[in-house]
Amino acid sequence: MAPVSPLAPAEFPTLPSIGGVRFAAAKAGVKYKDRLDVMLAVADPGAVVAGVFTRSATRSAPVLDCQAKLALAQGGQGLAILVNSGNSNAFTGHRGQASVEALCAAVAAETGLPASRIFTASTGVIGQPLPHERIEAVIGALNADLSGASLPDAARAIMTTDTFAKGAATEVQIDGKTVKIAGIAKGSGMIAPDMATMLVYIFTDAAISQPVLQGMVSDLNRVTFNAITVDSDTSTSDSLMVVATGAAGNATITEGDTAFSNALHGVMRDLAHQVVRDGEGATKFVEVSVTGAACTEDAEKVAKAIANSPLVKTAIAGEDPNWGRIVMAIGKSGAEADRDRIIIRFGDVLVAENGWVAPSYSEEAGAAYMKQSDLVIGVDLGLGTGAATMWTCDLTHGYISINADYRS
Amino acid sequence: MAPVSPLAPAEFPTLPSIGGVRFAAAKAGVKYKDRLDVMLAVADPGAVVAGVFTRSATRSAPVLDCQAKLALAQGGQGLAILVNSGNSNAFTGHRGQASVEALCAAVAAETGLPASRIFTASTGVIGQPLPHERIEAVIGALNADLSGASLPDAARAIMTTDTFAKGAATEVQIDGKTVKIAGIAKGSGMIAPDMATMLVYIFTDAAISQPVLQGMVSDLNRVTFNAITVDSDTSTSDSLMVVATGAAGNATITEGDTAFSNALHGVMRDLAHQVVRDGEGATKFVEVSVTGAACTEDAEKVAKAIANSPLVKTAIAGEDPNWGRIVMAIGKSGAEADRDRIIIRFGDVLVAENGWVAPSYSEEAGAAYMKQSDLVIGVDLGLGTGAATMWTCDLTHGYISINADYRS
Repeated sequence: MAPVSPLAPAEFPTLPSIGGVRFAAAKAGVKYKDRLDVMLAVADPGAVVAGVFTRSATRSAPVLDCQAKLALAQGGQGLAILVNSGNSNAFTGHRGQASVEALCAAVAAETGLPASRIFTASTGVIGQPLPHERIEAVIGALNADLSGASLPDAARAIMTTDTFAKGAATEVQIDGKTVKIAGIAKGSGMIAPDMATMLVYIFTDAAISQPVLQGMVSDLNRVTFNAITVDSDTSTSDSLMVVATGAAGNATITEGDTAFSNALHGVMRDLAHQVVRDGEGATKFVEVSVTGAACTEDAEKVAKAIANSPLVKTAIAGEDPNWGRIVMAIGKSGAEADRDRIIIRFGDVLVAENGWVAPSYSEEAGAAYMKQSDLVIGVDLGLGTGAATMWTCDLTHGYISINADYRS
Repeated sequence: MAPVSPLAPAEFPTLPSIGGVRFAAAKAGVKYKDRLDVMLAVADPGAVVAGVFTRSATRSAPVLDCQAKLALAQGGQGLAILVNSGNSNAFTGHRGQASVEALCAAVAAETGLPASRIFTASTGVIGQPLPHERIEAVIGALNADLSGASLPDAARAIMTTDTFAKGAATEVQIDGKTVKIAGIAKGSGMIAPDMATMLVYIFTDAAISQPVLQGMVSDLNRVTFNAITVDSDTSTSDSLMVVATGAAGNATITEGDTAFSNALHGVMRDLAHQVVRDGEGATKFVEVSVTGAACTEDAEKVAKAIANSPLVKTAIAGEDPNWGRIVMAIGKSGAEADRDRIIIRFGDVLVAENGWVAPSYSEEAGAAYMKQSDLVIGVDLGLGTGAATMWTCDLTHGYISINADYRS
């Protein structure tokens, strides 16, 4: 077990109970011995669910199954989410779908829900058959253990190479009602946009229609989970699901309700940042903020090129204020750029402008800044109003050690 | 100084003298003390030169200057190439162009060539002013030392983090005349397509027109230097130049002359492979061969996704036959793929087919194969006739050590 990331939050946050949904976790021994590796969430009738998934052409059997079920109209039924760690059930041929069907049937039998309302996810090693019978063996116990207070256990059950469990929560007042949002996430490697997280589950007691929720989740995903990268690799299992139970009793939220979408944005961003903070081998949390691009897409290209560059990320690991590598990454990004208009900042330290190092810049100031654990690399292209922000971590010996040995 | 790459050729090859072109190398102390760091090549009247350069939007001053000069019509004049290591003269503002002009003027004064026929390149740290006066100080000595036998010294003079000098040569019979080709290259990090090498200079005594030579070089670049990747980063200085002197006295080569283009292809591929073999921290040389894609572009996307994947490259470093990560990389590539048609091979070992691990595959066979230093990852997508090959290396602790410290 790798030591806990030095960038981990001081403690796991307090997660409120969310009316209308209950959780349980169990030890099924899918791969890991004697640790929580399966979670079950069950939401009451009336709940709606929205989701965003990996676009990988080799996506896993559970992802394909979830996408098909999410395309169905959502009525007044309840729903369940079953997730295991230790095995991703990806590239497992026709057996993969058979495992999904077996698990859904088992949850259906235990909960009384129709299989079409049961969503699954699997995370871990690719290409090995899922020992689904081990999971089936604990579904009865999971169903019996369901509790509003067990979301933290669920967060632990979905971890793989994660060094800390990830959770976030917030509250927002809507029409005099308190609406709660609580979410969990797992992921530390194979993290890159489309989509960047591995598994994220967020629960809210808000009353909101499925299409409005889906629209918000898709929009917010672009600036949260699709704006983080650890290693530019994209998982075959990435899944984000948001369940809304309606138990808060608020007036149904509509598309323009920024109070709710801002609160949801906060939870999604918090979880996305935690995934980066648990990036394999990470010792620095880096925000890359690009402004002044000719368009939003160009800003995203530049931010992504910097955030994914192994040379930038190793320089950060070495606490080297190597702004030449930032210039290199801007140059290769494919975005419109004019060498003589680029402004580069490390935090508040002006590094380069007018096509060269800034007269006020000193290596000492740059080197002192790079010693911090949380860094902001600012780039202004001086061309337009396009802006984008991405978050990443450094590339260290720890990443190599984890991935040259671990079979994921 | 890093130890010589374990993948280095046993020895530097014997490079023949090429009629019509002479070389010299000197110690100018640009950055490194007491080592060759400047090379000069001077070709006799009648020589033509073709080139391919980085597409970086932040390309260096020498690259911009070379591109402008290559766009001029080439008549019967001679030409010179001056290259320094230790400083890339990139992102140096208006001073960068001034340094290029000062160096060209100095070479012109010494050689009698017009400045428009003098090409320069600089490789090394980005964003620091080039101390061009140190280079100017040795140009007289370089010009006095010119010799047909000094190409190996030139190969050493252009090294930066390279652990071995890179050279390749061949001969081909054309119309009863022996045509010679000899080339040198440098590069070990910041290597990725567009274009992949850092600096490559190839010299031939073939008689060939500039447009025909340029066409061949551009075509062959796609399947050689643009088909290698070490770390997916793209240099601001990448330059490939091919000089043909005509001294062999062969009938002028035309577009369809495959004997010459095959020979040139061999030298370019050999040098490209050497750049990968000197990939920073590399312990494995990996050929990624993709067939059966819907089109060539899709094959290139899949090959590039595999060759650039940090998770694939760390698995190779760990000698782990982790074919699940190959599946992941295929999935994220953006190419059309059908999980159940993909065939994956490690060398001759059939690993996966029909959407799952092959019945004949054993972990022992995969693990034994991965212990070799030269590996072939074969992927057949089973969809069409698109094919592409890329070459890369593994991602190791050595890469992190080199790049977390070295200021490039």
